Amino acid sequence: MKHDKILMAHGGGGQLTDSLIHDHILSRLGNEALSPLGDSALLSVGSEKICFSTDSFVVKPLFFNGGDIGTLAVCGTVNDLAVAGARPVALSLALIMEEGLDMAELDRVLDSVAATARACGVSVVTGDTKTVEKGSADKLFINTAGIGLYPSGLSLGMDQIKAGDRILISGSVGDHGITIISEREDIKFESPLASDCAPLNGLISTLLDQCPGIRFMRDPTRGGIAATLNEIVRSTGMNVEIQEDALPVTPTVQAAADMLGFDVLNIANEGKVVIVVDQAEADTCLKACQAHELGRQAGIIGDVVAADQTAVVELITKIGGKRMVQMPYGRELPRIC
Amino acid sequence: MKHDKILMAHGGGGQLTDSLIHDHILSRLGNEALSPLGDSALLSVGSEKICFSTDSFVVKPLFFNGGDIGTLAVCGTVNDLAVAGARPVALSLALIMEEGLDMAELDRVLDSVAATARACGVSVVTGDTKTVEKGSADKLFINTAGIGLYPSGLSLGMDQIKAGDRILISGSVGDHGITIISEREDIKFESPLASDCAPLNGLISTLLDQCPGIRFMRDPTRGGIAATLNEIVRSTGMNVEIQEDALPVTPTVQAAADMLGFDVLNIANEGKVVIVVDQAEADTCLKACQAHELGRQAGIIGDVVAADQTAVVELITKIGGKRMVQMPYGRELPRIC
Repeated sequence: MKHDKILMAHGGGGQLTDSLIHDHILSRLGNEALSPLGDSALLSVGSEKICFSTDSFVVKPLFFNGGDIGTLAVCGTVNDLAVAGARPVALSLALIMEEGLDMAELDRVLDSVAATARACGVSVVTGDTKTVEKGSADKLFINTAGIGLYPSGLSLGMDQIKAGDRILISGSVGDHGITIISEREDIKFESPLASDCAPLNGLISTLLDQCPGIRFMRDPTRGGIAATLNEIVRSTGMNVEIQEDALPVTPTVQAAADMLGFDVLNIANEGKVVIVVDQAEADTCLKACQAHELGRQAGIIGDVVAADQTAVVELITKIGGKRMVQMPYGRELPRIC
Repeated sequence: MKHDKILMAHGGGGQLTDSLIHDHILSRLGNEALSPLGDSALLSVGSEKICFSTDSFVVKPLFFNGGDIGTLAVCGTVNDLAVAGARPVALSLALIMEEGLDMAELDRVLDSVAATARACGVSVVTGDTKTVEKGSADKLFINTAGIGLYPSGLSLGMDQIKAGDRILISGSVGDHGITIISEREDIKFESPLASDCAPLNGLISTLLDQCPGIRFMRDPTRGGIAATLNEIVRSTGMNVEIQEDALPVTPTVQAAADMLGFDVLNIANEGKVVIVVDQAEADTCLKACQAHELGRQAGIIGDVVAADQTAVVELITKIGGKRMVQMPYGRELPRIC
């Protein structure tokens, strides 16, 4: 299906984003570094290997329980570098501000940027500020790009994944997306919802030290773990089987998702990492995760399995049934990050 | 003067941008790499020195004579790296698209990105796509960030500037800004106006090879050469004297600027570089510039002079008078890049 106009779903991280990237962007700009569509690009710069990543943030509302657009802008790019295996070194920060934006709101966001960058141990080293007329933007959009140093000897990637590998998630899923949509719709729950927005570079550094059998990592943001697992299937040609009862979900997030009609598998996370690891190291990796404050709720959720026909993501339901998990269309949650 | 709301002039590259950056951003995020406010940050990454830069582009209209937002997005960041002395290596590209944007317009912009990147010899290696609802952006905003390799042995910077150094410009001033504003206001002139938007890395690489006496370079974009020269004065504490009759301006740009009430000194350029060079090498540098297709109209426009009181930028007018050139306020031309 061809579209002659940009739809909201083109930015949703699902099927339409995918076709936008392949049919319009990669067809023109594709190259060895860009075309693998990793969370960040791996480059040789002089004698070093560095990772380079970018993300724009258009989240609505700007402030939410657990963070704000500033926290997200730092965590998002730091996490993209970290899951690629790189040690984040420096960030850029570019602001597009709508005329009339409250300076106090901007200051609050900048305070979050500063605090989060400090927590990650990275500096904002370069930036840009632009303004547009009232009505030409929605308060504030932020772009961050980041550079990380890629350790010699490491080789992470979907091409490292083997049949039999196990799949871990570092904690409960759906918290970020469900928090945003609930705040936007002004829906209150008994237990408060909070975004999981957090920098993962500390946790990931620990995991890489302790588990040389880690094959691949990704932070399941837009499109949720459904998108991440479908990308693994598409890239490897192997099945992914996940166990519904192994999936960490908080009761409040599950209740909110059910009420709002969302599948938590499709919902964005901003402080979680999906890890594919050699089965022999899966328990070590799980324990290392659970020993870190950002990985207490970690779980082994499934396996990579050789496919005898078209590879798919399958969910083994709590009652033992099987359900195919599709790549989300992308319309679920606009402006989630 | 304190502002409690963001004004358009906060993004104009003049006094208000300056106070936004100092009072709100540097006060929170300042560090060794960010605080010099160079066109790009100079970082040590492992054993290499690299430059890192970012710019968002919100130009209106998206397409103009001489280029479009895609050309600008590549040239802007490539030029920021090049004037810092770095060899551009890789770019990121992040799109914020308004719902309803014509896919054909997006394709045209992406074609320009591809063609310009090819012309510069850099690749887009990482990217991001976001969408926002109709009315929450103005068609398309682009952010690019870039990485460049900084040659060992080079030391460029405002701190290298000495009294007696000469100031060159690589060609006529004001073309980009005057073209944009004329198209926006739908004003036609007998000779067509065209943006000077062009990648400067080739020209600059030649100049650095031939003129080791180059102290500092900057591409005078927002705020024009008035902003660049005032930054030099503020940083060095020395005067800058420029000769009005030495300043290359095309007759059409001058006529349009006069008609529209703009001072060409304050107008953005997107394919020009201001060069401060050891006086002993000024003629060599001028000839090297003029031998390059992007520097044919280059001229020596002034000098750095020790100040005996508060340092200022002074324009020696055609009739021999003196006029102080101030840092532009920033209100002149919104959304010029």
